[in-house]
Parts: sequence; structure tokens; C-alpha cells
Amino acid sequence: MVQIEQDILSKNDAYAAANRARFAAADVLALNLVSSPGSGKTTLLTRTIEDLGDAFPVAVIEGDQQTANDAERIRATGAPAIQINTGKGCHLDAHMVGHAVDSLAPASGSVLFIENVGNLVCPAAFDLGEAHKVAILSVTEGEDKPLKYPDMFHAADVVLLNKTDLLPYLTFDVEACIANARRVNPKLRVIEVSATTGAGLQDWYDWIRTAQQMARIGR
Amino acid sequence: MVQIEQDILSKNDAYAAANRARFAAADVLALNLVSSPGSGKTTLLTRTIEDLGDAFPVAVIEGDQQTANDAERIRATGAPAIQINTGKGCHLDAHMVGHAVDSLAPASGSVLFIENVGNLVCPAAFDLGEAHKVAILSVTEGEDKPLKYPDMFHAADVVLLNKTDLLPYLTFDVEACIANARRVNPKLRVIEVSATTGAGLQDWYDWIRTAQQMARIGR
Repeated sequence: MVQIEQDILSKNDAYAAANRARFAAADVLALNLVSSPGSGKTTLLTRTIEDLGDAFPVAVIEGDQQTANDAERIRATGAPAIQINTGKGCHLDAHMVGHAVDSLAPASGSVLFIENVGNLVCPAAFDLGEAHKVAILSVTEGEDKPLKYPDMFHAADVVLLNKTDLLPYLTFDVEACIANARRVNPKLRVIEVSATTGAGLQDWYDWIRTAQQMARIGR
Repeated sequence: MVQIEQDILSKNDAYAAANRARFAAADVLALNLVSSPGSGKTTLLTRTIEDLGDAFPVAVIEGDQQTANDAERIRATGAPAIQINTGKGCHLDAHMVGHAVDSLAPASGSVLFIENVGNLVCPAAFDLGEAHKVAILSVTEGEDKPLKYPDMFHAADVVLLNKTDLLPYLTFDVEACIANARRVNPKLRVIEVSATTGAGLQDWYDWIRTAQQMARIGR
């Protein structure tokens, strides 16, 4: 089994490297959005696209086991989106993403948001060629999640702690959650946001712009 | 890959059949609790154990990638619990559960709660020898989840729609969610509950007692 796993991952890594080279050549910042089901990824993404307006071109790849609902929600904002249905599959892989990029052909200077299948386990292991994994954790999920699903919080560079508008109705300890996340990944950036009220979103948009600049300097 | 998947599943099914025979011989009702991370499974389980008191003996198997936090929370109620850490693994399998049952040795007439790894995809495919899969879906996750993760809602016999105490603060359409779940699985029983306020829990306890009686009649 270990051998098979290594074969699958090394094949994926080759496709991921090809995606990464392609993103660099086209000046595309690819962000891999990972989370539990229901953390509010799509709502956050539609709001982000609407708020950023014409700051830079945007393209979206949506991953789900079934339905094209999320791609439709994104297209309603005017941004191009492609839905990948994984069927029995529990994560996107770099090969699927490469095909989607063929069709989307994101413009030079754009940000490509890849919304992975809602799953805090399997997507952690699969590099899609992204610049960063962005983990979304909603405050309704409990402050222990980074410790219970450490691979994901180790693989991510930033966590968006979402649905902070619900904090008054929960017994969720924000500081404990951040401390748990930093135990797993001391360099993790945590941004508290509410996609519903808009609180904290400016910090997230600033993070995207900085990531875009850093990627350009790195090339 | 398909061949490997079939081999893994058929091996798992053999272990699951052995577990099932063992549960029948010992008059143990095994329930496999499946959900996203953060749906409130453990809080629901501790409250269930406390409320049911001495109605019947209870034993618990906890699955997580890392930590023994959940088993400790269960043991604090006085119920015996064993934690399985799956490491890189995204679900429990029947072989792991068999080993845990060896150690737990649940008493005759007991209910064995198996809290799976929080993941709406992978645990759907793995029979653990349980009498029923019980899906927990929290109202913070959105009413589209049954359509996006249909395998899980197809595999489950009952859904506990949890955290209904948060409904006043959300734009969650309970009827639409139930309709979505029944599109995937017309026979699905849906019970609305709040593990925090206790609302609806009596229906869940009645469901457990009925399941216990049905399992006895079936033997």
C-alpha cells in the first residue's frame, strides 16, 4: 500500500510541477482553498470576487463530489468558473486541475482560486501546483480541529477563521484555536473573518495582494 | 486502481461481516456516527450517554487522525472508550474496529457508538459491521451538503440535523435541506436536534431503542 501511495503522489507531484511552471510563466497566483464541508468557502469566495472587482482578473476551479452548484454561484459574479466533479473521489489532484486550466486559460496577472472538495484530511497530501494552501475553519467547528487534523494545518500557509459573526452564540475560544493551530504550524498566519458581515476581509485581500507580489519577486 | 480499491473494500467487507456476527452474538447494537469535522458528534454523544444513564450499557470507539481528546471526553461520562488514531488515514476500517472491540468487550445488550473520523466522503465506503450509519449534519454547514456528498447520505439510515439552536442566526432552510437529503435517499429518517439545548434529543433516544428492538427481532 505504501508503494502504491508513493506512486500516486509522485505522479501527482509531476503534474503539480507542470501546473506550477505554467502559473509562473503566465503570472497567475494559484490559491488552493481547503476546509471541512460547510466552512463557508463558496460564500467567502463570491464575496471576495465581488469586493475586489477589477483589482485583477479572477478565475475559479470548483471541486465537489457532485453538483455544479458552486461553479454556478461563482459564474453569477461574472467570474469564469469550471466545476470538477470527483464522483467517489475525496480530493482534487494536479492532473484534474491541469485539464481545468486548459479550458479556463486564466489571463496574465490573474488570481486562480481552486476550491477543493470539503475534506480536512485527503486534500492535504495533494499538491495542485498552487502557491499556497489557504485553510478555512469556521468557528462553529470547535477550537480543537487543528490538533485533530494536523496535516492540513501544517500544509497551509494561512487560515481564515470564518463565521466570526456567530461567536456571540457559541462557546468558541479564539485564542485557544489559534494556539492549537500554531502548535501544528508555528509560521501559520491566522486571519479572523466573517464572509457575512465583511469583518476582517480587508486583511484577507491585503494578504492576497502581498502573495501576488511575493510570487512575482520569487520568479 | 479500480482493482486495488476492490481488493481493499472486499478485505474490509470480510472483517465487517465478522464484526457484525460478533455484535449479533453478543446482542450489541453498533452505530457508526459519520459527519464533517465539527458537526458536534462528540458533544451529542456525551449528552446522549449522560441522558440515557443506565438505560443500557454503552461503549464508544473514537476515530481521529490525531489526539485522544474525544475518548477522554467520553470517559469523563463514565462510559468505556477507546481512541483509534488513523494518522494519515481518512476513515476507520472494519479491521481497526475489530481490534478495538477486542479491548472494549462491550457487555451483552449494550449500544456501541463508533465515532468515525470527521469526513463526509471516505467513511461512506467502509462498512464497519454496524447496524446503521448515523449521519450528523449541523445547520451551520448549509442545506446543499446532501447533494454535494450524496454517497454518505445514501449510506446513512438516519440524519441528526444538529445545532438547531443556531437557526435564528443563520439563513438555513431546514425544509430544503430535508428535501435534498430525501432526493439522495428517499427512506432517510431526519431528526432535528440541538445537543446544546436538548431539543429533539428524545426522538433520537427513541430511535436508538427502536433500532435495538429491530436488531433483536432480526436475529
